[in-house]
Amino acid sequence: MASAEEGEERLSKRLALPIFSSDAISSSAYATEEILRVLVVAGAGAFLLSLEVAIAIAILLAIVAISYRQVCRAYPNGGGAYAVARHELGPLLGLVAAAALLIDYVMTVAVSSSSAVEQLISISPGINDLRIEIALAAIGLITLANLRGLREAGRAFAVPTYLFVGLAFAVIGIGGWRALAGDAAALPAHPEAMPLGTEAIGIFLVLRAFASGAVALTGTEAIANGVPAFRPPESRNAANTLVVMAVLLAVLFVGITLVAEAWQLTPSEEGSGGPTVIALVAQIAFGRETPLYILFQVSTALILFLAANTSYNAFPRLTALLAMDGYLPRQLSFRGDRLAYSWGVLLLSAVAALLVVAFGGVTTALIPLYSVGVFVCFTLSQSGMVLHWLRGREPGWWWRMTVNATGAILTGVVLVVVASVKLTAGAWIVLVLVPVIVLVMLFVHRQYRATAEQLAVRPAYVAQPPIREERAVIPVAGVTRAVIQAVNVARSITPDVRAVFVSDDPEASALLLRTWERQVPGVPLVLLESPYRALAEPFVAYLDILDVGRPPDEPDPITFVVLPEFVARRWWERILYNQSTRLLRQRLLGRPHTVVVNVPYRRDEQLHGEPAH
Amino acid sequence: MASAEEGEERLSKRLALPIFSSDAISSSAYATEEILRVLVVAGAGAFLLSLEVAIAIAILLAIVAISYRQVCRAYPNGGGAYAVARHELGPLLGLVAAAALLIDYVMTVAVSSSSAVEQLISISPGINDLRIEIALAAIGLITLANLRGLREAGRAFAVPTYLFVGLAFAVIGIGGWRALAGDAAALPAHPEAMPLGTEAIGIFLVLRAFASGAVALTGTEAIANGVPAFRPPESRNAANTLVVMAVLLAVLFVGITLVAEAWQLTPSEEGSGGPTVIALVAQIAFGRETPLYILFQVSTALILFLAANTSYNAFPRLTALLAMDGYLPRQLSFRGDRLAYSWGVLLLSAVAALLVVAFGGVTTALIPLYSVGVFVCFTLSQSGMVLHWLRGREPGWWWRMTVNATGAILTGVVLVVVASVKLTAGAWIVLVLVPVIVLVMLFVHRQYRATAEQLAVRPAYVAQPPIREERAVIPVAGVTRAVIQAVNVARSITPDVRAVFVSDDPEASALLLRTWERQVPGVPLVLLESPYRALAEPFVAYLDILDVGRPPDEPDPITFVVLPEFVARRWWERILYNQSTRLLRQRLLGRPHTVVVNVPYRRDEQLHGEPAH
Repeated sequence: MASAEEGEERLSKRLALPIFSSDAISSSAYATEEILRVLVVAGAGAFLLSLEVAIAIAILLAIVAISYRQVCRAYPNGGGAYAVARHELGPLLGLVAAAALLIDYVMTVAVSSSSAVEQLISISPGINDLRIEIALAAIGLITLANLRGLREAGRAFAVPTYLFVGLAFAVIGIGGWRALAGDAAALPAHPEAMPLGTEAIGIFLVLRAFASGAVALTGTEAIANGVPAFRPPESRNAANTLVVMAVLLAVLFVGITLVAEAWQLTPSEEGSGGPTVIALVAQIAFGRETPLYILFQVSTALILFLAANTSYNAFPRLTALLAMDGYLPRQLSFRGDRLAYSWGVLLLSAVAALLVVAFGGVTTALIPLYSVGVFVCFTLSQSGMVLHWLRGREPGWWWRMTVNATGAILTGVVLVVVASVKLTAGAWIVLVLVPVIVLVMLFVHRQYRATAEQLAVRPAYVAQPPIREERAVIPVAGVTRAVIQAVNVARSITPDVRAVFVSDDPEASALLLRTWERQVPGVPLVLLESPYRALAEPFVAYLDILDVGRPPDEPDPITFVVLPEFVARRWWERILYNQSTRLLRQRLLGRPHTVVVNVPYRRDEQLHGEPAH
Repeated sequence: MASAEEGEERLSKRLALPIFSSDAISSSAYATEEILRVLVVAGAGAFLLSLEVAIAIAILLAIVAISYRQVCRAYPNGGGAYAVARHELGPLLGLVAAAALLIDYVMTVAVSSSSAVEQLISISPGINDLRIEIALAAIGLITLANLRGLREAGRAFAVPTYLFVGLAFAVIGIGGWRALAGDAAALPAHPEAMPLGTEAIGIFLVLRAFASGAVALTGTEAIANGVPAFRPPESRNAANTLVVMAVLLAVLFVGITLVAEAWQLTPSEEGSGGPTVIALVAQIAFGRETPLYILFQVSTALILFLAANTSYNAFPRLTALLAMDGYLPRQLSFRGDRLAYSWGVLLLSAVAALLVVAFGGVTTALIPLYSVGVFVCFTLSQSGMVLHWLRGREPGWWWRMTVNATGAILTGVVLVVVASVKLTAGAWIVLVLVPVIVLVMLFVHRQYRATAEQLAVRPAYVAQPPIREERAVIPVAGVTRAVIQAVNVARSITPDVRAVFVSDDPEASALLLRTWERQVPGVPLVLLESPYRALAEPFVAYLDILDVGRPPDEPDPITFVVLPEFVARRWWERILYNQSTRLLRQRLLGRPHTVVVNVPYRRDEQLHGEPAH
């Protein structure tokens, strides 16, 4: 169980880095490409801007990372955007952050697995037609692994992350060296390259490029969420790991952009099956179709799949938090419970799979939805931190507040930019979904509160010992071991027990009565005729008759309806048996003073008074 | 409810005819066309054969009808193929007949609604592109009507049937008169007409035409199935109605074929949206686009929809019979039960809709699947009747047996012909499905028998009064009205009651303990810690602890687990509440000596000892 591991196995920084950073670091696999895809409309000359845009994003990353270092300190129990926003900005903004986070987790799965497949297509363009199928298969595998509980194999996660980082540094090193050596030249465009446009370079274009590249920041918050998983001193270790992660990501992102710019790499057309920009960068360093190139692409795909996998930890954790606070169905808070967890995993996979299919498994089409949610969370948690310092006035609160305020303002501006320039490209979906999710959570919350009020016991009330009469009624279909068991239980509840047989066949009734009187003496058997072979209605009508004629001022006795049940071991046994019992239970749920008792009979159980066999 | 109506409202022959005959009579709407579709490969000259083929089929119909008259007499309780085959030929062949019947009912829905839509297309070719959608909508409407219980509106059924029969006679009369008057001439082919082939006329072609046209016989058995619905003398009234039906069908079928042959009508290409043959026949009599023509086509469509509707009575009736005999899940035998009935209706509609979609809503593509099932039933029930007479040796057994033997041999031959000439056209599906369905039913039967043995009580066993100890354990989440109610019920079962609170929060536990001791004195509260917020596991572990240390020779006490439950009124309440209760119940099902007691709390219910409000 995840919570057990969290509590006991604290992570060293070396192990925490790959576990918490795969999401952030892997975004370097597509962030550069997203910038170039925007700039391409202004022709090859605009590519020169990509480095400036990347550096601006890296600076934003630095500020966000410093901001989040503060979160690590202020929230040693894990400062997810939901926790910070709820605590500092109030429940409503907390829910907005939660909704944005839920969307973020789904998008991480969809974007990362789509991009991973594109990395594989860059090795072997022939599989382009199967891109959706491969992405779905990968999501399916990750789902299965998580359902089977294989999710936190920390050490196994370290390998692909470090492999990717190492190879990426080699790529940037070789590429950078060749660029410095004056070796760089515009590569001949590959057949799938996007056509170069002739638009003028303007501020709007740069903003769009910036908004697209800002996707590099996704995943930065993961470490701040996971502070309690670090070895003590948790906050400091987490904060330092965060710095390492940010530096790695910044170097990779800017480095890849640098090489791409030097060779004037052109992104491939959407869904054309052409190579990704990071694949083209790797080709410059390693050559085409070399083993190193293939290894790099595979490791890129692997770290992206790992990034997708991180959502499978975070999503159920957040829904459990929301359920504990009464915003989602309570059963989701039982994290030790297999079913609640599986539900979360399957929902996450289903929505992600749907998105992959809807957007044709094309990463760039999914990005607008991704960035909006992420920047909502950034803005809300940084704003929350500003209030945190203002309220606490700890030593140094002034400069800490300044850091977070800078972060909040910058990410807020980026949010507005991303939401507006990408509005029609899909960002509107998120802007619609967030309030819908918030409303659903508020509805659930109101329900629980209303019910709690209805169920409240007045403080002065003291429970009385029972004085009510009671009786037990057993619907039977014959003299079976299950029925005998039920009779036994009914008799230990109350001496007033009767069995009821509903039938459309008077002969069968007479036959049963004879057997019953011989084998179950002392328990009367009531025979009810039901010409239409209905069971529940005649039975309930009989229960009503039992209460007829009682003095109106006396309370009705409790009626225990004792249902013999046969324990099903297989799925088809569940179809074949106990269906009428289930119907009866359903039917009796609304009846006052009625309590349903299920008496399961297990195969080979010994009956009371029966010699052992 | 159907069974109530059956018992009380006996049908006059005039009303029984449309109710039981719409299936059979409506097949005249497509049987002629099926013959012509085969003959067209041999060119217009082959059309001359259609009348001979139709007459041969009419003779077969006469023999089958006479055969079925005997069934009406021998099985006054309704002689469905299942009943006859099971009784006369043994359970296995009974199941084969049942499987064939189930398929037959599904095919009736699919074929009749597809053909009905084609009749409407003949009025208005523009709707051809929507043929599947219209057929599905019609099936959906019939399904809704049946789910709402509008299925046996006998009088309403009579109108379209008699309207169709009346108009069809007019069509044949006018067409026949014009043909006799020498007015007939090959019509100029309509644009959608099938191309005329040049194959030689051979025995195989004639056999195929015969096999195709034999679909006219579908539905003939309906009256023999429904003998008990007739007014007394039931058997004779049914037998006579059967004769009327067979004569009507034969005259319509041969008459339509005669007119079609006289004018050398060519069927339209499959799914082309061209007119049906019966529509062309009607055009000869009434003219194109006249009100009478439109009325005739609408009434043809209506009787076909009625024919589809008949399956919705027959299918649940047969599954109930099979369930009573232990071949299908028992709950299907509760015919008075809404759920079991709805299940049958929805299954029937779903499979029929699937077939309509799979075969593009084209009648002729569905026919091969239809005929095989029908002729399996004919052959089995006629063979059964042969044995019936051989065994009984009643007066006149010899000629009665001869009639049935002739029927059995002829329908058997037709079955072999249909199955072989239509094998690759879809008949193989039925030949695969029948054994699969039979195997499933045998599996269910074996399960029920094995369980009955396991549950059998030795005849010498006499139930003892209970001497076992008992205790009640209540999982609680706080002091709520539902919990107080559960405590009250538990205390009336046994004085040994304890409540259990599972929590990961020691503070919450301490707080609850104080409230509990004040408000529920005399019932100990056990506090269990569960760091992972799991509920079921710690609770079950506690139950195990209660049994530790008991002397091994003493029987374990019965543990009543009393579950407070909040009665849900809406679907979302069912999601929000009682989920942990449900999990716990599921988890406890396998625990020996454990009985689960559900105590539902309804809003505003008064607690024991509480002043009324």
